[in-house]
Amino acid sequence: MTVLGLGPMGQALAGAFLDNGHPTTVWNRTAGKDETLVARGAARAGTPAEAVEASLLTVVCVIDYDAVHAIVEPAGSALKGRTLVNLTADTPERSRRAAAWAEENGVRYLDGAIMTPTTSIGGPEAVILYSGDQETYQEHRATLGALGAGGVYLGADPGRAASYDVALLDLFWTSVSGLVHAFALARAEGVSARELAPFAKGIGALLPVAIDEFARHVDEGEHPGSASALLSALAGMDHIAHASQARGLDTGVIDAARAVARRAVEAGHGGDSFSRLTETIARPA
Amino acid sequence: MTVLGLGPMGQALAGAFLDNGHPTTVWNRTAGKDETLVARGAARAGTPAEAVEASLLTVVCVIDYDAVHAIVEPAGSALKGRTLVNLTADTPERSRRAAAWAEENGVRYLDGAIMTPTTSIGGPEAVILYSGDQETYQEHRATLGALGAGGVYLGADPGRAASYDVALLDLFWTSVSGLVHAFALARAEGVSARELAPFAKGIGALLPVAIDEFARHVDEGEHPGSASALLSALAGMDHIAHASQARGLDTGVIDAARAVARRAVEAGHGGDSFSRLTETIARPA
Ligand SMILES: NC(=O)c1ccc[n+]([C@@H]2O[C@H](COP(=O)([O-])OP(=O)(O)OC[C@H]3O[C@@H](n4cnc5c(N)ncnc54)[C@H](OP(=O)(O)O)[C@@H]3O)[C@@H](O)[C@H]2O)c1
Ligand SMILES: NC(=O)c1ccc[n+]([C@@H]2O[C@H](COP(=O)([O-])OP(=O)(O)OC[C@H]3O[C@@H](n4cnc5c(N)ncnc54)[C@H](OP(=O)(O)O)[C@@H]3O)[C@@H](O)[C@H]2O)c1
Repeated sequence: MTVLGLGPMGQALAGAFLDNGHPTTVWNRTAGKDETLVARGAARAGTPAEAVEASLLTVVCVIDYDAVHAIVEPAGSALKGRTLVNLTADTPERSRRAAAWAEENGVRYLDGAIMTPTTSIGGPEAVILYSGDQETYQEHRATLGALGAGGVYLGADPGRAASYDVALLDLFWTSVSGLVHAFALARAEGVSARELAPFAKGIGALLPVAIDEFARHVDEGEHPGSASALLSALAGMDHIAHASQARGLDTGVIDAARAVARRAVEAGHGGDSFSRLTETIARPA
Repeated sequence: MTVLGLGPMGQALAGAFLDNGHPTTVWNRTAGKDETLVARGAARAGTPAEAVEASLLTVVCVIDYDAVHAIVEPAGSALKGRTLVNLTADTPERSRRAAAWAEENGVRYLDGAIMTPTTSIGGPEAVILYSGDQETYQEHRATLGALGAGGVYLGADPGRAASYDVALLDLFWTSVSGLVHAFALARAEGVSARELAPFAKGIGALLPVAIDEFARHVDEGEHPGSASALLSALAGMDHIAHASQARGLDTGVIDAARAVARRAVEAGHGGDSFSRLTETIARPA
């Protein structure tokens, strides 16, 4: 196997291939990130083209698709007839464009997205979404299994994995933005992060319930608020904003969230479920 | 027991008292919300003062403290010598002010915050935070146990429960703001909410790990980004914003989250953990 890009995730991927006994060649733009891997038996390549030539299957995992193209395009002829699995996160548009580039250059291509942290890679908890040519996926499925048990194939549209990825990262980065803000607000109140943490986990445990309930509302296009109404949520969000402001904290995220909720309340949806905001978001002011 | 306010939560609280065999008197500003409760044996009061006189312990749970004061102040003399437990969410300042009002009026006062949905009330999963006079809490602790197993006393400062509450709701409402946005983005990509839901739960399952890791960083004031760096997170947030914009979705929340991350990156923290943003939030631009 070849792994291009040795950030935290690329290192974890190459490590998982090595753990499974696969001969593994690695390359990274900046030198020095391959030392642990080389000590564990990885081969070091001097260029992406040289790295690609060492294997039938190349995985690339870098910061974004600009970086992917910068690395992969000069190695286009070396990749011809081989398979490139792009586990870099980016938008569905750019995944489809990368697939088109691969097609034009005779490169077999799968697009993927990793939904779990580096520590999960190679283990039972890893979740990796794949999309693109089904035959290519079937051919490499077993090998890719080295990266973790949770490989999921989402279909032939190469943008499909990125469609899920971008929505799931939306949930993730917004949630952790709320988390760091909650820690800042608690600290301003003399509550340490460790004191808040067990209760924060309790809040996290409410998410699966909200996910199922909201998913039903969204797919059915009905947003009954009988158990908890948007107007009540907006009152809560107002308290958060006021308390944050009074303590000199940045209020950008909660203000933006309130603005969406307020727009829905003003449109007459104050008695609806919070899930109604999926509709409000789709029709910006 | 007396329950003032019969929104979804007030109804759940009164129902739990009834389930535990407590004689329960209820009142709500708008008529008609007590019918199920009265059918189950609750007494209907015509005014808050009349409701308060029926019991030694009164619980108030309405939309905010403006509503609490509108209900409770005219009943001040009826409350004298009795106990008021305020389970309405609001800011710590307003909790302390309500406690001061109670003290001036000879009312025994506890402030509380409910951290779980109406369906949890009376059961093992309910989490209710209390703060205020310890003796008052001890005296009513057993009775309040009817509302659920997870009563937690946080100390004599009446604002303490609200300090936790406002931080925890910050996490909750920001996370569900991310959830409704994720559903909107997925739908724009032809992915239904039900298709996304199992993976969204997987993302939710990552939160406890982030909570423990970030809590350690925040309390220790060190934010090592060796497993996942802020610059990488910002690239991901940029993809979310671009994909959302291309599909005509509101981007307010993710733009505000990116602005905080960008500020930290520009201050030289791109290699740090996302937890670094707790510091950035505490020092707004
Ligand atoms: N870390 C995680 O927990 C995690 C979890 C799920 C998914 N992911 C995804 O995995 C991918 C990689 O993430 P990561 O955590 O390993 O770190 P990252 O910071 O996103 O990416 C670092 C890698 O990108 C390379 N790179 C950046 N700009 C480049 C350019 N212009 N040309 C060539 N290479 C360039 C870096 O090379 P240099 O060393 O030369 O700078 C390094 O190899 C991302 O898409 C991320 O979203 C990560
Ligand atoms: N529902 C939940 O899942 C949940 C979970 C945790 C915590 N909580 C907290 O519990 C509290 C109550 O929530 P809720 O869901 O029951 O509904 P809510 O919409 O927050 O509050 C509705 C109650 O407030 C009353 N009210 C509003 N404005 C009033 C005013 N000016 N004067 C007098 N009464 C007024 C309503 O009376 P009318 O019927 O006359 O309008 C009704 O009794 C809130 O602080 C909320 O944050 C709720």
